[in-house]
Amino acid sequence: MNEAVVLTPERILEATEDVLRRFGLAKATVVDVARALDVSHGSVYRHFPSKASLRDAVAKRWLDRANEPLCKLAAADGPAPERLEKWLRTMFAIKQKKVCDDPEMFATYLALAQEAREVVESYKDKQVDLLAKILSDGVAQGVFEIDDVKATARAVFDSTVRYHHPAHAEEWAKPECPARIEALISLLLRGLQAPCKH
Amino acid sequence: MNEAVVLTPERILEATEDVLRRFGLAKATVVDVARALDVSHGSVYRHFPSKASLRDAVAKRWLDRANEPLCKLAAADGPAPERLEKWLRTMFAIKQKKVCDDPEMFATYLALAQEAREVVESYKDKQVDLLAKILSDGVAQGVFEIDDVKATARAVFDSTVRYHHPAHAEEWAKPECPARIEALISLLLRGLQAPCKH
Repeated sequence: MNEAVVLTPERILEATEDVLRRFGLAKATVVDVARALDVSHGSVYRHFPSKASLRDAVAKRWLDRANEPLCKLAAADGPAPERLEKWLRTMFAIKQKKVCDDPEMFATYLALAQEAREVVESYKDKQVDLLAKILSDGVAQGVFEIDDVKATARAVFDSTVRYHHPAHAEEWAKPECPARIEALISLLLRGLQAPCKH
Repeated sequence: MNEAVVLTPERILEATEDVLRRFGLAKATVVDVARALDVSHGSVYRHFPSKASLRDAVAKRWLDRANEPLCKLAAADGPAPERLEKWLRTMFAIKQKKVCDDPEMFATYLALAQEAREVVESYKDKQVDLLAKILSDGVAQGVFEIDDVKATARAVFDSTVRYHHPAHAEEWAKPECPARIEALISLLLRGLQAPCKH
């Protein structure tokens, strides 16, 4: 056993991802993770006191990593309507890429996410916060008129669920999908726009 | 066997629904349906030449029945924005009622619908047509401004998927659901509205 090397949470999470990739969610155990790191499983439990806490941490890491480009877009400058459109298209593309590039790993993470409910909920809340940032920038720019920014950000998130919720993943590769996304985004942008002044 | 009684497709479909309710989709057979009607299974096959055609017909009947109030609302008179809102709320309520009132039967029909893909697609197309009817009425009334009515009707349907697609059924009873529906509908209505005239 290699207890001399410093065992960080990050190293454990990396090893866990590897183990999940190799064995799948159903078969992967904490012992497999410990073996991959050449440490005792007690050493893993010192950082993640239960299998559930390790599972939640892996799910969170995966989601946070996927979210990085969206955080940047929300923090950027520029006209809010263009940024909103880009943000939505980027979110859809991230999801679609994950499904197409590595469908098995996507399925594994989906199963993981279904057990890590709280992690997924707080990830969704974070995305709504990012949307709210863009919407309130748009209000400040005078291009959007919105009574309740938070509720409207949630509505934008909810209205696009067909293109980011994995339950609809099999729709994403269909040829009519881009035109339908186009129509949806322009309907949403019109709904957010400040009406012309009298 | 009771071959003297006239065996109509409608009677067979009624009996099939009963059989599905009693045995569930996995166990129900055409022989069970024939037995319930006191006829030979050959008599059932005379009307529905395969198990798939019977399954599709049952799914279609179920969906058509659920759709009746929506057809009426789409055909009614009155201001389009109010009708659109009522149509959407009615659609959500129909779905939610089905899940709450008879969750087992809902699950059975879900499994049935997953096999009857074409029937479900044409049912969705029908709903988009109903939405398009209301939208074009709104354009005629001067209250909506829409470039492509059909594509926009599809966008309204897609944007509300969270409240009518069974994959999201477990969200429908949550306490925050009505407020989220409220925010979504008002965003959509604003997106459809004709802008003020200069």
